[in-house]
Amino acid sequence: MPMKAEIIAVGSELLTPDRLDTNSLYITARLNESGFEVHRKTVIGDSEEDLAALVGEALSRSVLIVVSGGLGPTEDDVTRQAVSRILHRPLVIDSGVLEEIRKRFASRGIAMPEINTRQALVLERAEVLANPRGTAPGMWIQEKNARIVLLPGPPRELQAMFVASVTPRISALHSGRQMVRRTVSIVGLSESEVDSRVSPIYTRYPGIATTILASSAQITLSLTQWLMPGGKPDALDELTRQIAEALGETVYSASGETLEEVVGRLLRDSGRSLAVAESCTSGAVAMRLTRVPGSSDYFLGGVLCYANDVKEKLCAVPASVIEKHGAVSAEAAEALAQGVRLATSSSIGLSVTGIAGPGGGSADKPVGLVYFGLAGPHGNSHERRIIPGDRESIRERAATYALAYLRRFLLS
Amino acid sequence: MPMKAEIIAVGSELLTPDRLDTNSLYITARLNESGFEVHRKTVIGDSEEDLAALVGEALSRSVLIVVSGGLGPTEDDVTRQAVSRILHRPLVIDSGVLEEIRKRFASRGIAMPEINTRQALVLERAEVLANPRGTAPGMWIQEKNARIVLLPGPPRELQAMFVASVTPRISALHSGRQMVRRTVSIVGLSESEVDSRVSPIYTRYPGIATTILASSAQITLSLTQWLMPGGKPDALDELTRQIAEALGETVYSASGETLEEVVGRLLRDSGRSLAVAESCTSGAVAMRLTRVPGSSDYFLGGVLCYANDVKEKLCAVPASVIEKHGAVSAEAAEALAQGVRLATSSSIGLSVTGIAGPGGGSADKPVGLVYFGLAGPHGNSHERRIIPGDRESIRERAATYALAYLRRFLLS
Repeated sequence: MPMKAEIIAVGSELLTPDRLDTNSLYITARLNESGFEVHRKTVIGDSEEDLAALVGEALSRSVLIVVSGGLGPTEDDVTRQAVSRILHRPLVIDSGVLEEIRKRFASRGIAMPEINTRQALVLERAEVLANPRGTAPGMWIQEKNARIVLLPGPPRELQAMFVASVTPRISALHSGRQMVRRTVSIVGLSESEVDSRVSPIYTRYPGIATTILASSAQITLSLTQWLMPGGKPDALDELTRQIAEALGETVYSASGETLEEVVGRLLRDSGRSLAVAESCTSGAVAMRLTRVPGSSDYFLGGVLCYANDVKEKLCAVPASVIEKHGAVSAEAAEALAQGVRLATSSSIGLSVTGIAGPGGGSADKPVGLVYFGLAGPHGNSHERRIIPGDRESIRERAATYALAYLRRFLLS
Repeated sequence: MPMKAEIIAVGSELLTPDRLDTNSLYITARLNESGFEVHRKTVIGDSEEDLAALVGEALSRSVLIVVSGGLGPTEDDVTRQAVSRILHRPLVIDSGVLEEIRKRFASRGIAMPEINTRQALVLERAEVLANPRGTAPGMWIQEKNARIVLLPGPPRELQAMFVASVTPRISALHSGRQMVRRTVSIVGLSESEVDSRVSPIYTRYPGIATTILASSAQITLSLTQWLMPGGKPDALDELTRQIAEALGETVYSASGETLEEVVGRLLRDSGRSLAVAESCTSGAVAMRLTRVPGSSDYFLGGVLCYANDVKEKLCAVPASVIEKHGAVSAEAAEALAQGVRLATSSSIGLSVTGIAGPGGGSADKPVGLVYFGLAGPHGNSHERRIIPGDRESIRERAATYALAYLRRFLLS
């Protein structure tokens, strides 16, 4: 079995309706890579007594406890005191740490406020973990067979310290087991369609954990396996291959590439350029495409044709097409794709026109109706979908379907 | 003092590097409104023994325990069994619940799989909470002076049940205290600038909790106060007013309106229309503007002018401007704003052109340099900023600054 770790995030602000402890995702990824399984995560307020009790409980069930936050200079920062109390070990000023903090302030031309002296308090027999990006040092504490790691809350400080100081220490500890992970990314099938096709396969591999994550019309299958020391992920790779085969062309990546990266690679490899005409998505397709650095090699831009007038003026959609078929129609979608292709001299034009709601729907053309158009040197085509959900999710899913439609076009 | 609540999320998938328990944000907001303060949140895997122990501990420190997840039909769904074990109360099949589940499957033309019988297991002396959106019913359990609420994990099921069945029950319980909340939204100042202006004010109101949340160049101050039964939020409103005064025109809302809603209202009220020309933001400004339902009343669309050629073709930017000053320049920004205004016949043209990186920067024009242009009937103007961060955050912040620039223009 992997070794048991737990994560504690300290801070009353993490118990409000606005904030989540996102550090735990980063910490979990690093712990899994080093052979630890996270079996519990707790968020607790700035109460020394409550935190001390929690750390005491955690010591009875986990071999590694990672605590983030509560290392600042104010009275509200209780982590040092809480751990000192439960382990019955005093806090002492570490003169080396104090000097580092003074220097840090001095380099900004400020005298260290007296209050920051608190950040130089270190638990007896703890190892100090340097914080190159902030004033609060971390600590590595051994208590019987368990280890407690104290890290500051700001993600950029925590992450730099984890890589530099925590990973080497936990790697030396761990059992030799390691978590290995594969992903299969799918577009064009529902979560239950994916599950019904692949569950007969993955249930034959009880040693591999398979999870399904659906987001904006994309589905990611995550396959993880704990390997023995020296073990090879042959079964994991075999399962990944079988699942990819069963899902066929709906799989756009088995290596973690995003849909926009896949489309970008296909465009670049074929030397083709792209322009978009977006109505209801209003830039969502372009935003996705240009998330990829270097996308200017193949993406030219396009038209945000929110108003019908703009569809006519900038994409040369004949007024008669809109009058006869409406702005949300197969004819308009094809005319937009062709229009933006000609206006920008791109190889391919891609369009999206639909009804994102909440208003604007009718019996004939309900909210969620979206047409996608494609124009290339050999003519135009379109696709029609009815997308469930609210305004935001209709727009996000429409952008995904537009990219999926383009992918199929580029593959054919 | 407000009454103490804690939240437990059950599910091993919530302990992976991909998933957070987002239900707790919704639950916290509802609990705060009803007079409960959340003092701890725990995420735990699908282990009956661990969950039973955790519920036992929670009973010793909280008067209300909200458990989400683990109510599905499979062996992995351990919530019912864990609570039954720790409270020493048997689970019995509730024939009414079973009938509901059968009906739900029948309405989709499917016979109920035998496995779903498990979902009709109800704890002795628990009240069943109906689930109109799924098969798993919830439970309301009294144990001595505490209450335990079991809810299914899918957010749309949980939220509907919370409003219909949990809020009425906890409102009847609560102490009469109530949390009242005000927000002040700011753009154009850094987090530390905001804090240094307002901390002398809010520290004079020790009974009000003030938190600062920064996101994509926008800052939200959240002010909360627990009121006695019958109490009025006069001090809270006074503090909100004083803070808004101290921050002046950087405050775009003291009522929770988003920046795009404020800009939309100003456009609608003045009867003006808007078009955008987006280069590095590539649709982010348009996406923000069109998140607001009804934005088609004032937003016409525009041009995604990623390539220089598109800047010239669709926004009539003279090639000489780009040759002489570059595509990222004050001159290009103004020409783009004017060009898109003329091309779409809008009242106002707004442009963004910059270097989002990671490549493309130089000593003269570093990554993060962004120009914003505005064109109206009385001429053009521009603004220059250097925005820190990575590609995604530069783009997001640039979209915020574009909206903030437009807001100031509309107010002047």
